[in-house]
Amino acid sequence: MYDVDIAEKIRKVQSKKRFQHTMGVTYTSCALAMHYGADLDKAYYAGLLHDCAKHLKDEKLLSLASKYDLGVTGVEKDNPFLLHGKVGALIAEKTFDISDPEILDAIRYHTTGRPGMSLLEKIVFVADYIEPNRDKAPNLEKVRALAFEDLDLTVIKVIEDTLNYLKDKAKSIDPMTKETHDYYIKERIIHGNI
Amino acid sequence: MYDVDIAEKIRKVQSKKRFQHTMGVTYTSCALAMHYGADLDKAYYAGLLHDCAKHLKDEKLLSLASKYDLGVTGVEKDNPFLLHGKVGALIAEKTFDISDPEILDAIRYHTTGRPGMSLLEKIVFVADYIEPNRDKAPNLEKVRALAFEDLDLTVIKVIEDTLNYLKDKAKSIDPMTKETHDYYIKERIIHGNI
Repeated sequence: MYDVDIAEKIRKVQSKKRFQHTMGVTYTSCALAMHYGADLDKAYYAGLLHDCAKHLKDEKLLSLASKYDLGVTGVEKDNPFLLHGKVGALIAEKTFDISDPEILDAIRYHTTGRPGMSLLEKIVFVADYIEPNRDKAPNLEKVRALAFEDLDLTVIKVIEDTLNYLKDKAKSIDPMTKETHDYYIKERIIHGNI
Repeated sequence: MYDVDIAEKIRKVQSKKRFQHTMGVTYTSCALAMHYGADLDKAYYAGLLHDCAKHLKDEKLLSLASKYDLGVTGVEKDNPFLLHGKVGALIAEKTFDISDPEILDAIRYHTTGRPGMSLLEKIVFVADYIEPNRDKAPNLEKVRALAFEDLDLTVIKVIEDTLNYLKDKAKSIDPMTKETHDYYIKERIIHGNI
């Protein structure tokens, strides 16, 4: 049984809807970890803490990123919510005593992904998109089934659907998201899967 | 996004530990549903409500079972906690307005299983055993991986491990559990998988 108190702490700072999403990501990460042989405990804590900075206001995200030299990019300055991964990793370390670099990276890159993600990073990235409370993203049924078949291809599909969604909404795109997409496409070409 | 209020109602009647288990079963059921192509909504509600009667005292379980003619067997009379599946299905219907017979059966048979379970019943039965908060059952890592490979074989393994556990603890065994085991062994022999 995982420590009930950590989940309780997260529940208290999140809205009911966000905490429901957090539970979805936590246990979907765990299920993917069971299937792909990743560390279950790391999947649990990375999922539980992935949005631990999402309730923070733009000014707070920017001030914490500046105070702890998190390296704020131009697009992050214009769209501070993009910082909730980096700041989340910081809070996971400082407040929740998480020192495992794999868990911290999975929190840090859960929104944008990055080239060469670890298995755990890919799991949290995908779980964030497919967890059962999501209902507005396109192709969800297919992507959910694919997640248990081919994790790298799921990363590509998630980014493609996200980019289309952001384009339609005229929202800013973090260049890292495109880099991640291109990296995984290239990987598949190299390994003859495309 | 699933209705937050239903999860909140369950949270209020369960201990923190039991609710954490409930969350684990809910989303593990959903992940298995994504993988095996079962209905995600039904998996969510069956998982969320599977233990909705587990907090009730023995006398209450027996009195509700008697009042609603749920057919109390000898072993259930001696071990009223075995009734929490049957009474849970009753409460899901009366209190939570669940009318779908598949969801109700998945709640009703989640502890003992039964011969000829539906896909949803097998999913909730297995999720109850493998969910990430479980840590005392034997062979958990293997059973968790197997759950995403071969669901029927997982049902057999879960029952075998449960029977061994109950034997060691000198706890009573519901004859239905043994019947379920024998049914799935026979099924595999018929289909040439053993």
